[in-house]
Amino acid sequence: LQLAPTIELDPLRLRLWTLDARVAEPAVLTDAPRLRAVLRAAAERGGATILGEEFCEFGNGAVTGVLVLAQSHLSIHTWPERALANVDLLSCGSIDGEAIVFEVAERIGAEQTRVTCRARTVW
Amino acid sequence: LQLAPTIELDPLRLRLWTLDARVAEPAVLTDAPRLRAVLRAAAERGGATILGEEFCEFGNGAVTGVLVLAQSHLSIHTWPERALANVDLLSCGSIDGEAIVFEVAERIGAEQTRVTCRARTVW
Repeated sequence: LQLAPTIELDPLRLRLWTLDARVAEPAVLTDAPRLRAVLRAAAERGGATILGEEFCEFGNGAVTGVLVLAQSHLSIHTWPERALANVDLLSCGSIDGEAIVFEVAERIGAEQTRVTCRARTVW
Repeated sequence: LQLAPTIELDPLRLRLWTLDARVAEPAVLTDAPRLRAVLRAAAERGGATILGEEFCEFGNGAVTGVLVLAQSHLSIHTWPERALANVDLLSCGSIDGEAIVFEVAERIGAEQTRVTCRARTVW
């Protein structure tokens, strides 16, 4: 038995993961230090290297946070009035995007989720 | 003639735009100050409010930059060795995401592009 050699169409392994989550306890969505810790723990869980970060808090308690990674970026935006969080991970290389997204979902107490992943276009 | 009232399924107007672009002149992809100016000009072109930013430069000249917006975020990651840039815009509210994405594409001299837009899940 001979198997054809596999062809790596995208050696950069560029993937865009998205998570839309409705959480059980909206208090987490207005807690910027906790969300920062959640993103950092999730990034590390997936083997990513954190290079920088930017967080903002809004008047209604909503939080936006972005980690710049050596392997692209991980962001969260929260909508406490809807118990909603949107998480985006653009990943490249060998980090485990699925582990990162699921770690965030678990740590924010997601009870309803929509997760997508797609390859980005590389020429 | 009576028309049914329109139903706004997502009053947040949450949209995820992506742009994968191959550029004519890769020199722009290693020029962090220029990319910062491109993102800021594009965000303003689409009516977004810039709240913060984080930029990193890599050893091979690649640049990662993120603007935190009052209406979510705008990011760029460049791959100069492939003349490639990946741009992501998560947008909410009344900003013009299409204008932002196309402004970035034009200002970096994109000659091949793949643009996508999809609504995020809101409960």
